[in-house]
Amino acid sequence: MTHDAKHFRCKVKDRIATIALDRPERKNPLTFDSYAELRDWFRALVYSDDIDVVVFASNGENFSSGGDVHDIIEPLTRMNMKQLLAFTRMTGDLVKAMVNCGKPVIAAIDGVCVGAGAIIAMASDLRIATPRAKCAFLFTRVGLAGCDMGACAILPRIIGQGRAAELLYTGRSMNAEEGLGWGFYNRVVDADHLDATTRDMARRIAAGPNFAHMMTKTMLAQEWSMSIEQAIEAEAQAQAICMQTGDFERAYSAFVAKEKPVFEGE
Amino acid sequence: MTHDAKHFRCKVKDRIATIALDRPERKNPLTFDSYAELRDWFRALVYSDDIDVVVFASNGENFSSGGDVHDIIEPLTRMNMKQLLAFTRMTGDLVKAMVNCGKPVIAAIDGVCVGAGAIIAMASDLRIATPRAKCAFLFTRVGLAGCDMGACAILPRIIGQGRAAELLYTGRSMNAEEGLGWGFYNRVVDADHLDATTRDMARRIAAGPNFAHMMTKTMLAQEWSMSIEQAIEAEAQAQAICMQTGDFERAYSAFVAKEKPVFEGE
Amino acid sequence: MTHDAKHFRCKVKDRIATIALDRPERKNPLTFDSYAELRDWFRALVYSDDIDVVVFASNGENFSSGGDVHDIIEPLTRMNMKQLLAFTRMTGDLVKAMVNCGKPVIAAIDGVCVGAGAIIAMASDLRIATPRAKCAFLFTRVGLAGCDMGACAILPRIIGQGRAAELLYTGRSMNAEEGLGWGFYNRVVDADHLDATTRDMARRIAAGPNFAHMMTKTMLAQEWSMSIEQAIEAEAQAQAICMQTGDFERAYSAFVAKEKPVFEGE
Repeated sequence: MTHDAKHFRCKVKDRIATIALDRPERKNPLTFDSYAELRDWFRALVYSDDIDVVVFASNGENFSSGGDVHDIIEPLTRMNMKQLLAFTRMTGDLVKAMVNCGKPVIAAIDGVCVGAGAIIAMASDLRIATPRAKCAFLFTRVGLAGCDMGACAILPRIIGQGRAAELLYTGRSMNAEEGLGWGFYNRVVDADHLDATTRDMARRIAAGPNFAHMMTKTMLAQEWSMSIEQAIEAEAQAQAICMQTGDFERAYSAFVAKEKPVFEGE
Repeated sequence: MTHDAKHFRCKVKDRIATIALDRPERKNPLTFDSYAELRDWFRALVYSDDIDVVVFASNGENFSSGGDVHDIIEPLTRMNMKQLLAFTRMTGDLVKAMVNCGKPVIAAIDGVCVGAGAIIAMASDLRIATPRAKCAFLFTRVGLAGCDMGACAILPRIIGQGRAAELLYTGRSMNAEEGLGWGFYNRVVDADHLDATTRDMARRIAAGPNFAHMMTKTMLAQEWSMSIEQAIEAEAQAQAICMQTGDFERAYSAFVAKEKPVFEGE
Repeated sequence: MTHDAKHFRCKVKDRIATIALDRPERKNPLTFDSYAELRDWFRALVYSDDIDVVVFASNGENFSSGGDVHDIIEPLTRMNMKQLLAFTRMTGDLVKAMVNCGKPVIAAIDGVCVGAGAIIAMASDLRIATPRAKCAFLFTRVGLAGCDMGACAILPRIIGQGRAAELLYTGRSMNAEEGLGWGFYNRVVDADHLDATTRDMARRIAAGPNFAHMMTKTMLAQEWSMSIEQAIEAEAQAQAICMQTGDFERAYSAFVAKEKPVFEGE
């Protein structure tokens, strides 16, 4: 896998990939090109052995303004159903690719985080924000439904059905304090500390047993619509697999030797 | 659809229906008649083109005291299984009708909101309460189970499984502060402002793209037991449908013209 | 059913069973023996008519340190896949047995509550903690995945998907304040009051209609992966069954007589 990207920023260091949309002068809108390239990038990530964690970063004090009005909304108003469905499936495929990429994704959210930008934050595993983060699922304001890219399924599981309903029906901004209190954000830190805090969290997770993290991520999505009995059986199998990794033995040996384990991800 | 109702209050103004149970001297209990009429009213609402939002209001400083002890509980103690199941199915049908009515429902909750009253609040999309709102899923106190009209499925998704379990096992009141902190209430306002705040919220939502709202409501319920992949595909289809409405184009044109969009609900 | 237990403490009084792991000098780790005996005990509980509520208590200022490093972790590092799967299924069977035992389980959590200990707390219906409770799903620290004994399915439904993801990826401790704010704990009380508060809660629930409680517990688990329509029909049936119990009539008669109902659990 090459980590080059044309339509967004991508930098890999210490097995952590930091990506960001890259039109800060317009608050980082998505275009057809960046959507498609992000989808392909996350799909390829499944097979990558040199990235353990992804940071989806802000850029120029904003996360993303969502689908570009001129580059995306305008063309959509002229498309037929076949073309529209191809578009909504492509955007949905980005969320599926993020959910199935096998590596924890941490969104670092500053400033504007709206529309498809809010969806990308929602589809990440963890979210760290600044006090000025403004997150809005504003589809209703552009004449559309709140059911965009999985929002009616995923958002209620993060913040609860009643709060999700309000955000999706009104399109209003969730401020940072609400986001923290409702469990959307895992942490809110000053803008000066956003990068460092995110990087610390990413390093900490990347230093863990990455094969096992992949299994955690898989099961967090996979068990969604299982019964309790099915979920428990699925976890019995998944954890038994992890118990045959070297990392499990490394942790035990390190414990006995009173050392800190060094995981190798297999 | 006629909006006349014999067994509850119903007023339609500015495309917003305001309904309320109407025996304030007894804190608005439900009867067999009001249950059945509410069920039929919400079922007919699916086909109504002149109502965009429903406000389920309080009346005389209380929301509802639930199933009337004399009119409902007493007869139930004498029924056989066929009759009992007919009754529990009818009450469940009210919740199904509310969930499937296609219009956002806002409950405005003052004072007593217990038993089937608490269920009606729970089955609404949004909930605004006063500081003196007392909401209790008190079935256990009348010798019954917490699994009434969908409570074991819906309540955990609003406030979480642990808090729902406590309310359902003990039947204790959830006060307004808890309700707000737990995500049951979207807002708590002084009793003086309950009507105005609810009306503002109703107007704001009714001014939105109502066809799209119907789709949001549909998908918030529909995706409940889907896998993430199924939910994302379902939303790709639902949103593609919304992209062919005039409201989507209206929003784009208004944006370009730097005007506020006026939606028409189709 | 005999309530004797070799590998954990068990005392039954006033129809309330109080159990606790019993190696306080090592913070109450689980062993193969205590796992298996707990599973069998909860399985037998389904058929017990003399226990209405279970308290899973702390012992010596700690709840449980999880799977014992020497007695469990070390042997696991030498097992083959068949043996590993037998172990993970046995641990999962404990959670299934707790979920299906038909009686509300209240965990009383002081001090250390980690690994399989945290899972037992999670699999209980209600949780009361002290300010010094430290709950960690620390599987990742021993080289394993967060998907252990149902955690990826159950924890998100209690505290939300985002918070659960953080705890499962990092293995960090959730402190008592977080646990209360996130809905993991139903109450946090001083260590001096943990026993009394838990016993009050247990008595209060045990004084309720216990057949109906069993139905509430059944449906809280059963409706997990149902559609809203299926859940409502399932509750219509479950509640109709409860309406034919004597407890329902007892509650009505007591109400009419202005007395407090005395339930008999059938």
